[in-house]
Amino acid sequence: MGLFSSPAKVYKPAAEVDLGPHSVAGEHYISPNVKAPRVAGLLVKMLAWVLETPVLGWIVLSVLKRDNLVYKLVSDAEIPEPPLFTATHTWQAAMPEKNVSVTEAGVSPAERVQVAVAGIPADMEPAATAAALADGPSSSFRRWTVRDFHSAYSSGQTTPVMVARRFLAAVEECSGPDRNMGLFISCDPGDVLRQAQESTRRYQQGAPLSAMDGVLVAVKDEIDCLPYPTTGSVRMPAALCGVVGFKPTAGRLSNSGLLPLNWTVGMPGILAATVEDTLIAYAAIADQSKPSPLQQPELNLPLLTSTRSIPNIRLAKYAKWFDDSSEDIRSLCGKALQMLRTHYGWESVEVTVPEIEEMRLAHYVTMGSECTASLAKYLNNMDRSEIGWDVRIALSAYGSFSSRDYLNSQRLRCRQMYFHEKIFETADAIVTPMTGVTAYALQDDALSTGELDYINGAALVRYSIAGNFLGLPAITVPVGYDREGLPVGLQFIGRPWSEATLLHLAYAMQESCGKEHCKKPKVHYDLLKKQ
Amino acid sequence: MGLFSSPAKVYKPAAEVDLGPHSVAGEHYISPNVKAPRVAGLLVKMLAWVLETPVLGWIVLSVLKRDNLVYKLVSDAEIPEPPLFTATHTWQAAMPEKNVSVTEAGVSPAERVQVAVAGIPADMEPAATAAALADGPSSSFRRWTVRDFHSAYSSGQTTPVMVARRFLAAVEECSGPDRNMGLFISCDPGDVLRQAQESTRRYQQGAPLSAMDGVLVAVKDEIDCLPYPTTGSVRMPAALCGVVGFKPTAGRLSNSGLLPLNWTVGMPGILAATVEDTLIAYAAIADQSKPSPLQQPELNLPLLTSTRSIPNIRLAKYAKWFDDSSEDIRSLCGKALQMLRTHYGWESVEVTVPEIEEMRLAHYVTMGSECTASLAKYLNNMDRSEIGWDVRIALSAYGSFSSRDYLNSQRLRCRQMYFHEKIFETADAIVTPMTGVTAYALQDDALSTGELDYINGAALVRYSIAGNFLGLPAITVPVGYDREGLPVGLQFIGRPWSEATLLHLAYAMQESCGKEHCKKPKVHYDLLKKQ
Repeated sequence: MGLFSSPAKVYKPAAEVDLGPHSVAGEHYISPNVKAPRVAGLLVKMLAWVLETPVLGWIVLSVLKRDNLVYKLVSDAEIPEPPLFTATHTWQAAMPEKNVSVTEAGVSPAERVQVAVAGIPADMEPAATAAALADGPSSSFRRWTVRDFHSAYSSGQTTPVMVARRFLAAVEECSGPDRNMGLFISCDPGDVLRQAQESTRRYQQGAPLSAMDGVLVAVKDEIDCLPYPTTGSVRMPAALCGVVGFKPTAGRLSNSGLLPLNWTVGMPGILAATVEDTLIAYAAIADQSKPSPLQQPELNLPLLTSTRSIPNIRLAKYAKWFDDSSEDIRSLCGKALQMLRTHYGWESVEVTVPEIEEMRLAHYVTMGSECTASLAKYLNNMDRSEIGWDVRIALSAYGSFSSRDYLNSQRLRCRQMYFHEKIFETADAIVTPMTGVTAYALQDDALSTGELDYINGAALVRYSIAGNFLGLPAITVPVGYDREGLPVGLQFIGRPWSEATLLHLAYAMQESCGKEHCKKPKVHYDLLKKQ
Repeated sequence: MGLFSSPAKVYKPAAEVDLGPHSVAGEHYISPNVKAPRVAGLLVKMLAWVLETPVLGWIVLSVLKRDNLVYKLVSDAEIPEPPLFTATHTWQAAMPEKNVSVTEAGVSPAERVQVAVAGIPADMEPAATAAALADGPSSSFRRWTVRDFHSAYSSGQTTPVMVARRFLAAVEECSGPDRNMGLFISCDPGDVLRQAQESTRRYQQGAPLSAMDGVLVAVKDEIDCLPYPTTGSVRMPAALCGVVGFKPTAGRLSNSGLLPLNWTVGMPGILAATVEDTLIAYAAIADQSKPSPLQQPELNLPLLTSTRSIPNIRLAKYAKWFDDSSEDIRSLCGKALQMLRTHYGWESVEVTVPEIEEMRLAHYVTMGSECTASLAKYLNNMDRSEIGWDVRIALSAYGSFSSRDYLNSQRLRCRQMYFHEKIFETADAIVTPMTGVTAYALQDDALSTGELDYINGAALVRYSIAGNFLGLPAITVPVGYDREGLPVGLQFIGRPWSEATLLHLAYAMQESCGKEHCKKPKVHYDLLKKQ
């Protein structure tokens, strides 16, 4: 590094770091440390060109990396721990969970969905649902859930085919010049209708496959997150959109069919309107097919009917981190946590999660390095002009990481795994906001070239790194709207294999403050309502 | 890479590669591909200086890497497999072994040594030993073994104190100006004598700790292999010195106390005069303390008494690789293998182990990258002038690897693991020479600056990579001497956790052709003989 190095950080052995609320480690909380101005339009093209020029590119990248403390905190740092290369957890270390149905391996997805539905409280105001279906929107908006669709199909109030037709019409309208929302990369109306017809027939015969039969499900195309450090991206978009986002322990959902953008960070997850729907989808897609030390053979599905009676939950909160978000987010998430304490008597424990910014950089190096290696095959076969300008800049940065950067990042992963394990000895989950900022508008100059906005980017991903980098389960649940009317999410990060506990926590949160806050989005198509 | 890149290799999926003897993969065997002249003396200093100069160093390294096919086979290659970061094996996959004593966890080292000794044939000519002790060297030289020492101590023919005194005198003479051998980095005569006195007392009381009580053991200081790609270095020096070298499955011996030069390649091993001594030492130090999916809870110790009666051993041989060694090595190893077939009726199976040179490069990148990261702490605190010139060159090369180089090397590890697993479906072990060349003299110009001799270096390590990179057990056993009188070793590489099988194979080899070949080394001190 020579010319560009600054005094490197010498890390203490992880076991000697104080994780209490008054730890010195907390005094070293770094935020927001991103020294890279927002770049869009012509500047993006110029920067891409500079970075792709051999010597000049190396110099500019070195300055950027120095200014963003990559050398100080990662490349040149002295780290006592060995590398930890993956974020996988043996299930033998799992703590037993209470208030759950345990399903053994070999149970079919449909049966698991049935178990999940049986654990959901029945106080979903079916009368209100019926009224809403019949009489139009009531004053308080709520999204239709899997059970609403299933109930409407079962009672014959509507059919999967009718819903599918409304859905396809809505997609078409959204894609038109007025809205230009481009919701789907690919959608085959013929196939959607065919499936809806089959589902309709099954309901007519009184034999739906499960509570999810005929319910529309979208599958995320992984390629869309190519250039951004926002991996494997479930909880963050969920929080920004005011819905629930759930990422189980690494290995709990199958990776098969996923483009391996990166091998050791991130994994699939679930976005759904409510915690109940999240649970149903989770029951449907959880993977019990490969019993191994790295995959829990049993699946714990929470009995949400019992959430209210769960005592002694302890939630770890790191104040400096928690508060490193916009004023509204801080305030809404603080109030939400207070409600949990009031309604359920659950405790919060003040802790320090050390080296948050260090972990963000280590994750960035890991994700970027793995992207570069995994995408080489595709990039080799592409003309440079086919690749977006912002992507080219990202790839230049990613390609500049050394093997030592990568290995040191894995050593920081080892430290973080230790810190988190220690914190989970005193708490059932870590509670944070889901994002540091709410959704921000893409500006005009970004439309053709993309934009680089690492300051907002870092604030967005501030709280999602641990789940991806450490393979821990995490869930976000909406807790209100900021002054601009944009949704805010609260996150729980749990112990390995504690999915049921997280769903209980999210359900409690939703019951405490989710419902009264739910606002109708600006664009809304009601797929169930009678027209 | 730009300027320096050549068309990158596009690897086929590993599962589509033919491992049979006539595979196309065999036509791509690359050897010896090292394009780096031997450099010593002033040239080493100049090269170090050039490589440490920012832009010039980068250009020269790029040319060297291009010429040695690093870009073509690793950096820019398209590899279908995901990275495999470690060379560890779950013991659940271990095949049951026959002709062994199974010792459960919790058995003490002394008890295990007793089990090992009980499995060694008693036909060690105790009369001959006694005669040798009494009457001086017989015509055929043989090294004293653990059992010779134990027997001489037990019978009172000599004592650990007498042996220790002779040993210390020999060490002093070797370190003197005449011999200048520098055998030991550190040796505390007071401590050696104190331990010998305690041992002597125990023998006098008829209560030695085990068969190893009072037997001198040297512990290798790991730092000595700093700059060379010859890791964790047991089998190679053993072969060059005409003794047995044994590297069990990764995880079988404890790493505790080892300087972590690299985390994912190499591990401790045993050098001993005979297979019997290797077995005894293995029984003494095998680690059964951390039962986990990555450590076999039981320890299989071979009953060497039964080696002769083991049927149906199948030895895989890759002819192109096997023959890529000096004429004498090729011929001696070939004859040795033939003797096994003749004496024991064991089969050899012709196979192709694809991508041998590719694996060497991947291992080099891995080892170099991990060295750079692990040694940073020590190097940061050293003056550059304290570091040897040859080491500075190696560190320049190691520091030039990108995170993509590292990840692609792990993808090549994944392929090799697959290839080896497949070969082990049809064979019990892979048989190779241990080195491509025998020991070569260090030339005068290398004494002050060190030397860089990657051509001989690559030939030396040609057959030791798989054991280190894939964590497989492997053993070398002497099979004769080349025309210059230098020892030649044959290697068996085994399935994970097949240590007992390998010891059987090595014992059979030693019995077939090891003994008649044993030559007295130029420098020899007899520690047991009556003076």
